[in-house]
Amino acid sequence: MKKLWGGRFTGSAEEWVDEFGASIGFDQELAKQDIEGSVAHATMLATCGIITEAEANEIIQGLKKLEQQAEQGELDYSAKLEDIHLNLEHHLTELIGPTGGKLHTARSRNDQVATDMHLYLKEQVSEIIELITDFQTALVDQAEQNIETLMPGYTHLQRAQPISFAHHLMAYFWMLDRDKQRFIDSLKRINLSPLGAGALAGTTFPIDRHMTAELLGFAGIYENSLDAVSDRDFILEFLSDSSILMMHLSRLCEEIILWTSQEFQFIELSDAFTTGSSIMPQKKNPDMAELIRGKTGRVYGSLMGLLTVLKGLPLAYNKDMQEDKEGMFDTVKTVRGSLKIFAGMIRTMKVKKEIMEGSVKNDFSNATELADYLASKGVPFREAHEIVGKLVLTCIEKGCYLADLPLDAYKGMNMLFEEDIYDALNTYNAVERRKSAGGTGFSQVQVQIEKAKTLL
Amino acid sequence: MKKLWGGRFTGSAEEWVDEFGASIGFDQELAKQDIEGSVAHATMLATCGIITEAEANEIIQGLKKLEQQAEQGELDYSAKLEDIHLNLEHHLTELIGPTGGKLHTARSRNDQVATDMHLYLKEQVSEIIELITDFQTALVDQAEQNIETLMPGYTHLQRAQPISFAHHLMAYFWMLDRDKQRFIDSLKRINLSPLGAGALAGTTFPIDRHMTAELLGFAGIYENSLDAVSDRDFILEFLSDSSILMMHLSRLCEEIILWTSQEFQFIELSDAFTTGSSIMPQKKNPDMAELIRGKTGRVYGSLMGLLTVLKGLPLAYNKDMQEDKEGMFDTVKTVRGSLKIFAGMIRTMKVKKEIMEGSVKNDFSNATELADYLASKGVPFREAHEIVGKLVLTCIEKGCYLADLPLDAYKGMNMLFEEDIYDALNTYNAVERRKSAGGTGFSQVQVQIEKAKTLL
Amino acid sequence: MKKLWGGRFTGSAEEWVDEFGASIGFDQELAKQDIEGSVAHATMLATCGIITEAEANEIIQGLKKLEQQAEQGELDYSAKLEDIHLNLEHHLTELIGPTGGKLHTARSRNDQVATDMHLYLKEQVSEIIELITDFQTALVDQAEQNIETLMPGYTHLQRAQPISFAHHLMAYFWMLDRDKQRFIDSLKRINLSPLGAGALAGTTFPIDRHMTAELLGFAGIYENSLDAVSDRDFILEFLSDSSILMMHLSRLCEEIILWTSQEFQFIELSDAFTTGSSIMPQKKNPDMAELIRGKTGRVYGSLMGLLTVLKGLPLAYNKDMQEDKEGMFDTVKTVRGSLKIFAGMIRTMKVKKEIMEGSVKNDFSNATELADYLASKGVPFREAHEIVGKLVLTCIEKGCYLADLPLDAYKGMNMLFEEDIYDALNTYNAVERRKSAGGTGFSQVQVQIEKAKTLL
Amino acid sequence: MKKLWGGRFTGSAEEWVDEFGASIGFDQELAKQDIEGSVAHATMLATCGIITEAEANEIIQGLKKLEQQAEQGELDYSAKLEDIHLNLEHHLTELIGPTGGKLHTARSRNDQVATDMHLYLKEQVSEIIELITDFQTALVDQAEQNIETLMPGYTHLQRAQPISFAHHLMAYFWMLDRDKQRFIDSLKRINLSPLGAGALAGTTFPIDRHMTAELLGFAGIYENSLDAVSDRDFILEFLSDSSILMMHLSRLCEEIILWTSQEFQFIELSDAFTTGSSIMPQKKNPDMAELIRGKTGRVYGSLMGLLTVLKGLPLAYNKDMQEDKEGMFDTVKTVRGSLKIFAGMIRTMKVKKEIMEGSVKNDFSNATELADYLASKGVPFREAHEIVGKLVLTCIEKGCYLADLPLDAYKGMNMLFEEDIYDALNTYNAVERRKSAGGTGFSQVQVQIEKAKTLL
Repeated sequence: MKKLWGGRFTGSAEEWVDEFGASIGFDQELAKQDIEGSVAHATMLATCGIITEAEANEIIQGLKKLEQQAEQGELDYSAKLEDIHLNLEHHLTELIGPTGGKLHTARSRNDQVATDMHLYLKEQVSEIIELITDFQTALVDQAEQNIETLMPGYTHLQRAQPISFAHHLMAYFWMLDRDKQRFIDSLKRINLSPLGAGALAGTTFPIDRHMTAELLGFAGIYENSLDAVSDRDFILEFLSDSSILMMHLSRLCEEIILWTSQEFQFIELSDAFTTGSSIMPQKKNPDMAELIRGKTGRVYGSLMGLLTVLKGLPLAYNKDMQEDKEGMFDTVKTVRGSLKIFAGMIRTMKVKKEIMEGSVKNDFSNATELADYLASKGVPFREAHEIVGKLVLTCIEKGCYLADLPLDAYKGMNMLFEEDIYDALNTYNAVERRKSAGGTGFSQVQVQIEKAKTLL
Repeated sequence: MKKLWGGRFTGSAEEWVDEFGASIGFDQELAKQDIEGSVAHATMLATCGIITEAEANEIIQGLKKLEQQAEQGELDYSAKLEDIHLNLEHHLTELIGPTGGKLHTARSRNDQVATDMHLYLKEQVSEIIELITDFQTALVDQAEQNIETLMPGYTHLQRAQPISFAHHLMAYFWMLDRDKQRFIDSLKRINLSPLGAGALAGTTFPIDRHMTAELLGFAGIYENSLDAVSDRDFILEFLSDSSILMMHLSRLCEEIILWTSQEFQFIELSDAFTTGSSIMPQKKNPDMAELIRGKTGRVYGSLMGLLTVLKGLPLAYNKDMQEDKEGMFDTVKTVRGSLKIFAGMIRTMKVKKEIMEGSVKNDFSNATELADYLASKGVPFREAHEIVGKLVLTCIEKGCYLADLPLDAYKGMNMLFEEDIYDALNTYNAVERRKSAGGTGFSQVQVQIEKAKTLL
Repeated sequence: MKKLWGGRFTGSAEEWVDEFGASIGFDQELAKQDIEGSVAHATMLATCGIITEAEANEIIQGLKKLEQQAEQGELDYSAKLEDIHLNLEHHLTELIGPTGGKLHTARSRNDQVATDMHLYLKEQVSEIIELITDFQTALVDQAEQNIETLMPGYTHLQRAQPISFAHHLMAYFWMLDRDKQRFIDSLKRINLSPLGAGALAGTTFPIDRHMTAELLGFAGIYENSLDAVSDRDFILEFLSDSSILMMHLSRLCEEIILWTSQEFQFIELSDAFTTGSSIMPQKKNPDMAELIRGKTGRVYGSLMGLLTVLKGLPLAYNKDMQEDKEGMFDTVKTVRGSLKIFAGMIRTMKVKKEIMEGSVKNDFSNATELADYLASKGVPFREAHEIVGKLVLTCIEKGCYLADLPLDAYKGMNMLFEEDIYDALNTYNAVERRKSAGGTGFSQVQVQIEKAKTLL
Repeated sequence: MKKLWGGRFTGSAEEWVDEFGASIGFDQELAKQDIEGSVAHATMLATCGIITEAEANEIIQGLKKLEQQAEQGELDYSAKLEDIHLNLEHHLTELIGPTGGKLHTARSRNDQVATDMHLYLKEQVSEIIELITDFQTALVDQAEQNIETLMPGYTHLQRAQPISFAHHLMAYFWMLDRDKQRFIDSLKRINLSPLGAGALAGTTFPIDRHMTAELLGFAGIYENSLDAVSDRDFILEFLSDSSILMMHLSRLCEEIILWTSQEFQFIELSDAFTTGSSIMPQKKNPDMAELIRGKTGRVYGSLMGLLTVLKGLPLAYNKDMQEDKEGMFDTVKTVRGSLKIFAGMIRTMKVKKEIMEGSVKNDFSNATELADYLASKGVPFREAHEIVGKLVLTCIEKGCYLADLPLDAYKGMNMLFEEDIYDALNTYNAVERRKSAGGTGFSQVQVQIEKAKTLL
């Protein structure tokens, strides 16, 4: 097989160098987009009189046939032909003869591959946005069923204040909402057509870039041909947004792993999302949560990888940029899979309401109530804080909790304490009374859920 | 000095542990924002009847005094008091007495520090956007003066096709435009108030979060108190956007370093942006371009650092999150400095037009013209490509360039070649004729510059 | 003040460019090493007859005086003079007159700064190795006191098999031992002298590089002058080794945070290593463990930063390489502090033996014993595993543990079960019997501790 | 197909969750090592009387058959069976019946997979060391042929001082030598056997870990069973060492890209390592150098990925750790391919001696000679430096080089200049005279090459 760019070359490249340099092993994932772009290009070439209508039809029929073959896995790809572009062109020419060679008029692989990737990522980001929404829906559904489910709220993994489990779940709703916003914002920069930028400088042919952009559903075109072929921001932005999303998921993973431990026992996962051990039959491991937490590293790595690739590259295209694809494909797969798993995992998990609530009762997470109690009676907060600290210490020494101390003990510290402190110390009340906007008070959580629903 | 949270504690922390754990060494950069947030909080507390107007006034007067002292560098900070919040509160209480202790009512350091950072980043990002605009203006100015300055366009650092130097500069304009868009988009997520989220759960006091948000100029509030204190997305997004920006700058750095080399000699930098050598007096090193290229690593590192910090953290606040600040401060400083340097460097650089253009003439970068010439006469592009490859080879063997070959040599390859190929091979014409949208044709570059100006 | 490399320059650099480009803000940390290197260089220059003994003495006396001043913080540094090298040379010349200018004979800032950093890192790595040893000692001490302290061993954060707490602690001993080995190995590459490599090419002066290497305590010299000034491997290796070390610490941090939670309560930290909350007086936060876990990100970031800086840099010195220092200094500080804190934290922590052991009893972590029991009687392990799985399920349905099932229930599953299964199920026995080399059996843990001691 | 750990499970996992969680898609690369480990394990089990000799033989025969099938690509793998371990066990049991189930006695997948990876990496690192040596040999060979080939030495990509091209190539020899040392050092930590550590705690069976270690060629065993199954340092160290190696390669890539540019033209690559352009037939792109420079990002990314995965993981095995493999496999492939390509590229490149040397003559890179000239006559170096700076300025104004100035012009600056300065300014002499140890003087380069040869 002859190399398409081979005219000038006299030596012969050894096969393993070809293998090392070829991208066909992974960029075949872009076959559909490559064909789509070529169809638009051929259509435009004919409209602009650069090739004839007949030639365009021949080319487009050929491309449609290749598309079918590609879908059915019937196309052979060869590393000798480097990449998806040359492989498809080769097949096209075999199919329809030398007219196939006219398709590459007024186009270069540089603008072609950029076009493919924009098309690909546009589609994928749109689908990821839907998957986020589905996962958010699962969170809202679980939240709605757990508004009055009490659990300890943690800081420093120490129990801090009792909260509503719904409130905790909804925190993730808002993280995901920002993720969604970021992906939506990124579409502005993904949804642009580089097609027609040529190798780097545009072309002398009277092409119509707006026409191909429209045919491909792009919202606009790149304004500068050098930029069009050199830009990989849109992939970096995708990897950044995905890294932040995965970070969010990793946090929920961590919590799910904690919550399913023997020590917490707050929830039980469906068997579908856990596995057993080959040696310890009693284990029910939250494998999917661990795996997604682990996969965060992979996505961070792809981001760091592409940032490194692009650092210090002069314009315009350099072969280094071939390294932009695998990390992107892998991240798409990882993010999609993780979101899908998570939606299922959250939907099917069983909340152990009694255990959660029980753990809230046997601790000092109602101590803030006392401090607020005093502060609301005019004691400077810092003083109130100090007093409560001493009361906690007293309890620890006596082996009891705050609600167990007699009123005398309270009055001994400060005469402003009255009988109603026991109401304040009640966990349900403590949560219920946190009615500040966005707070864990049940009514506020209800408001929050309603707002969330309008966003779905 | 007594630790403010010390009521419950019996042991005594050694000084070096304090040093290790304290953030005051760097978070003093947030003094202004911390005071601003406290003033808004105190105002709101009084309006909502949680403290008296008199108390609020006393507190606010105290804070204003501290602000003055902070500006004049007259405040002492102590590691014993951990962070900027406790240091300021301590000074306030020393200044106005126990009323100072009331400021912390219905607030926690968790929402306080988040508020400070939102305020800080909002201000910085706005200023960075202005610095980008200034740098873009410098690019457009240079571009306008170099529309007809010819230079080799490169791919793979091999000369590919002649282009306009203005076109090359404008490629960076559009990169920076995307950077600006990204920062503007990020403001939506920065410009939200976490204040009033308390430690994690909201508060029982009848506060008005919308009021403080408005007083501080925020566009809205966080809808979930856990999320409000746990979220560091806005910093990650800033670091991501900055990483992409620095990557862009690193590419231009690389080019400037190439262009100022003895081998290229395309431009000369102003002495203000170069340095000499302690041992080689003839050197004029493009130090600033190298340094900014190097600083790209620092910004990538801060992004990776914070992504690592947040991975797998359970809600809500964890001390790990104290590590969010230094990378952010450092990145702000790096990005601001780099943009400022770059605007100056581009404005003052001297373009060596003759050398640039000379290098365009003595190479094969007009080979594409020939291929396009044949293609426009109906030869399938792939065939045309092959023919030109052979012509280049002929030239190399003969030691000449394409324009030096006689017409016979052309006709020997393909009879469609006519006398007008010499026009096509002319470099100026080659550039001029690339009139496709966004191409390097002078008229298109002019259009591009006009569009750019409307964006400034 | 006049720039030392200024002869060729006609323009004037603005102050803020100087600030941006200067390294004196951080490389003053190398003052001691820079003077040490200069003393050795001057000594050698005189011995080799390049300067006179008298000149050398004058220079060395001057340098000693500067060293004293530097130690006492009495030296002024100026950004105009860029870096520590020019600042010190300036002070030297002010002190001893033009003879000071002879010190730079046969030397360049390129080999000078590399020498400083080798000296610095050699010293720091040696000290870090000692700090690791101290922390290892703390681990061994705690382990020795907890050989028979039972705890649940976890996989997937699910209780898997009971183990000795000493065994768990000793796992970290061996991680740290590998860290130590790595740092020791790295010294081979740190402990080399670049001095005398000049700017990049060596020098025409008859210097003796082996002499300066010896005077500075280096084990050898760089064999290639270009490599000597371009190499930053030794810093990358330090950052890699530190990243792995921090990763180890982050794992123990995570465990300490879990163990001090209300849910686990396995240990209690000394007050010295915890902090309270400004709003929740009952909290005792494992701040130091969280902070060190967080600081892992910072070290990873510095590694990634320097890897990025060096990627694609042509030889020899480029200004980008100035970015090698801050991450190194910061990592030294972070690693030293973290090790010191950890040694103290482990030494002073209180092990809650009863709670640990209690949690081992109320779970299924002895299930493997049953499977091993059957396997040792000839049942293929996979079959045994299946049988035990069913027994665990039976228990869960009945709400009991394995030791609570009557023998009949066992025999109902497999007739090989005999009365001695209750011995096998006993937790103490289960641990005690794991006597395979490196296993958790008490006798093996004892052996392990003895081996560890020989390494300290 | 039934899940092997399924006894306790009542729900049914959907297929896509299986797919997401399975590692068989990539860990099949460990088939050979997994079988090797199992053979050693079975042998030991029999020797220790845990299974019979007959059983062991049956198992080993079965495993050998599987090995053959695996080599010939005849084994089916199923995601339902998760990983290579369960897939092989399944095939073994199909082949030899229930005896196959005895192989897993006294073993867990946790120690099994760790063993596989140690075996794999040990083999790969050994081969990488050989590939480094081969590449070093190519460098030495080219160096030997270019000892007296002059080229400009650069700092800041500005010509600094003339050097020998051999010296430049040899700088990479020493970088690679450090890489080799690092890989050799890492083998100490790779070459240890985790086998017998069980799930985490060792085993109650009377196994002999030293025996399996010896059978597998390991130098020793892990001393702690928890550490044995939790440790992934050896992979991190491999990724770190590989990152530094790739960084080195990326620097040489950058130089090759520069040297093959039209502006430098220092070398010409063999056609085997370059490619053409689909649109610009005259191009001869240094694709392999660009691609390897780009692949640096991929390796950095894998390092960062695994560092992230392991951060904060509690002991012992967690499913996150499954993410350790793909980055390792990919890095092995990348490093091997890059070294192989580089050895070929360096061996076959054509050095354009005249162009290199020509570029040395027409610049100021001999300016240091003048400064050294004066310094050797007793002028303080800083003064000499200043004088030379002025001479360079004079030349630039006159449009000439230093050797073109008449002696008068020199004497006008300093009377110590004599006729012999023209000798000093001669480029060949300038290089020849840099005889300091490790300098670029021809005799020193010869010494360096001889030392290098003893290391090959």
